[in-house]
Order: sequence, then structure tokens, then C-alpha cells
Amino acid sequence: MPESMSQASLPAFEITLNALSGALDKAQAFVATKKTDAATLLHAKLAPDMFDLTKQVQVATDQARRGAARLAGVEAPSFEDKESTIAQLKERIAKTVAFLKALDRGKIDASAEREIVFPLGPDKKGHMKGDDYLNHFVLPNFYFHCTAAYAILRHSGIEIGKRDFIGNIPMKMT
Amino acid sequence: MPESMSQASLPAFEITLNALSGALDKAQAFVATKKTDAATLLHAKLAPDMFDLTKQVQVATDQARRGAARLAGVEAPSFEDKESTIAQLKERIAKTVAFLKALDRGKIDASAEREIVFPLGPDKKGHMKGDDYLNHFVLPNFYFHCTAAYAILRHSGIEIGKRDFIGNIPMKMT
Repeated sequence: MPESMSQASLPAFEITLNALSGALDKAQAFVATKKTDAATLLHAKLAPDMFDLTKQVQVATDQARRGAARLAGVEAPSFEDKESTIAQLKERIAKTVAFLKALDRGKIDASAEREIVFPLGPDKKGHMKGDDYLNHFVLPNFYFHCTAAYAILRHSGIEIGKRDFIGNIPMKMT
Repeated sequence: MPESMSQASLPAFEITLNALSGALDKAQAFVATKKTDAATLLHAKLAPDMFDLTKQVQVATDQARRGAARLAGVEAPSFEDKESTIAQLKERIAKTVAFLKALDRGKIDASAEREIVFPLGPDKKGHMKGDDYLNHFVLPNFYFHCTAAYAILRHSGIEIGKRDFIGNIPMKMT
């Protein structure tokens, strides 16, 4: 049995987004314990011209939501980028996971050979085959922004480990 | 046509590893221009208890090499972790890409339902179905370490952009 497009996308988004939500819980606990400032954390960056934590989480959820919607051939709901608390970022993640759960898996499975057209900046469009779009655009971008969010938390002193990034995966341990 | 396990793994590894090699070229140029110290860069970290740049690149190549080898049902060659220059890290990446190119794609395509058993630390073993192993262990770990390497370079002042991470993907732009 070959892998399906829906199986290669939806569960990976869901597991990694839920893991990110869990890492944000630890960030929230850190803010409470250290009596530090959540705003500083939410605007922390790894380089002056990189996105801050808030934007990394926003873009990670955008990649999953828009990527999966394009593969399913439906319009993604537009989310306003106005989160200013950790709780609101967690809400955005939860809304994204709920949206992914409602998508038609059969439509995504049928998208491997279909041409996907998507905006690249304000003026350009990218054109890719569905499977290429998933493998070479959506997944790398999604993991990039999830990892960047995780790295900002680590860099800021939050005690999280690799397991907080990988999340609750279908693995048996012996 | 559904997506194949080999198509969901090998080209993604190859494109992203070649992109990482290109980012290391820019790191090498930065060291030359700024008359700074390559060793400092090679040992740069985002947090005291995270891997340094050298180790991130080593582990990224390990994930691709061992992950693909396990799916193909062959033994991965063992690489000694002894790189101490940017050129040597690029060599490790090139050896990894050459190994991936030589794997039997048919064997990887047939691995979606096969149980993959792999070491987790010194004493434990993980057990996952082939497609789960690819989607929830190998790809997230691979992208995690590639992104961490990229983020260390950005954090260290190297001028690279998202395109240096995404690499040379099969996309038409209009």
C-alpha cells in the first residue's frame, strides 16, 4: 500500500501543532514562575531580521491551513494576525487543527498530480504539482517555522526538549 | 496516482541537504570576508544545551542517511563525527546525497506498512510503521536539524534568506 497525500500531511500537521501548543504551555508556565514578561517572549527573535515568536507561530499555522486547503481544493479561512498573548496563539493553533480535521481526505489524496497555484509575495505566483507542493514547499516551510518557534523558546531559556517538538507520535517503545 | 514513499523522502532530503551545503558556502564566504574564526561559527549554539552548528549538520545528515536506509532495508554506512571545518561538513553532506541516490527506490516504496525498528538512545528501541516513521520521525527530525543549522547561521550574522533553506525546488514562477 503506498502512502497517501492526506496521510503524509494532515496527521503530521496535527501532531506537530499540538506539540507546539504544549511547548507554549511551558512558555506560559515559565512566564508565571519567573515573573517575567510574556510580551518580551512573544517578540523574541533569533536575528533582527527574522520573525518573532508570535509571527513564527502565525506562519506555521498558515502553512498548514493554506497548504492543506489548496491540496483539498477549498478556500482556507483567513485568520487575522492579531494575537498578543500565549493563550491567543494556542487558540489559533486549536482553530487550525479543527480546520484540518474537517477537510475531505479523498480530495487531498487525489491532488498528487494536480497543479497547485499559490501566491509568492504580492505579485508572483508559484506553480507546483500537488505532491511536489506538499514535499518541497508546505512541509519544509511548516517545519521551518515550528522549529524556529521552538528554537526561540529554547534560546529564551524555556526548558523544553526535542520530545516537545516531535510530540505524541504513533511509536511503540521497547 | 498516490504519492510514493521514495518520492516523499529522497528528493526532499537531497534538495534540502544541497540547500544546506549552499548556506555553508555563504558561511565560508562570511568567515573569509569578516576575517572571523570558522571554529567559533562551527561551535555556535542557540542555547547552552542545544547542539552546535557542526552537530546539527551531522545529525541532519544522519537522519536522512539512516532514515532512508531503514526504509530501504539496508545498513547505513557509519560516518565518524570528526568534521572540524566547513569544507568537511560539506563533504559529509555530499557523501550523504551520493548514498541516497544509490538506494533502491522500489524497496523504499514497499516500506509503508513494514515495521521499522530503530534505536532510541543507548537502551531503547522505537517501533513504527514505515509511513509513520517517515512522516512523524524522520522528516520532522531532519527538518528540525536543518532549520537549527540555518538559524545558527542567521543568529551568527550570515546573510541568508528563506530561499537558502528551501533550495532548488521544482516550481514554476509567473
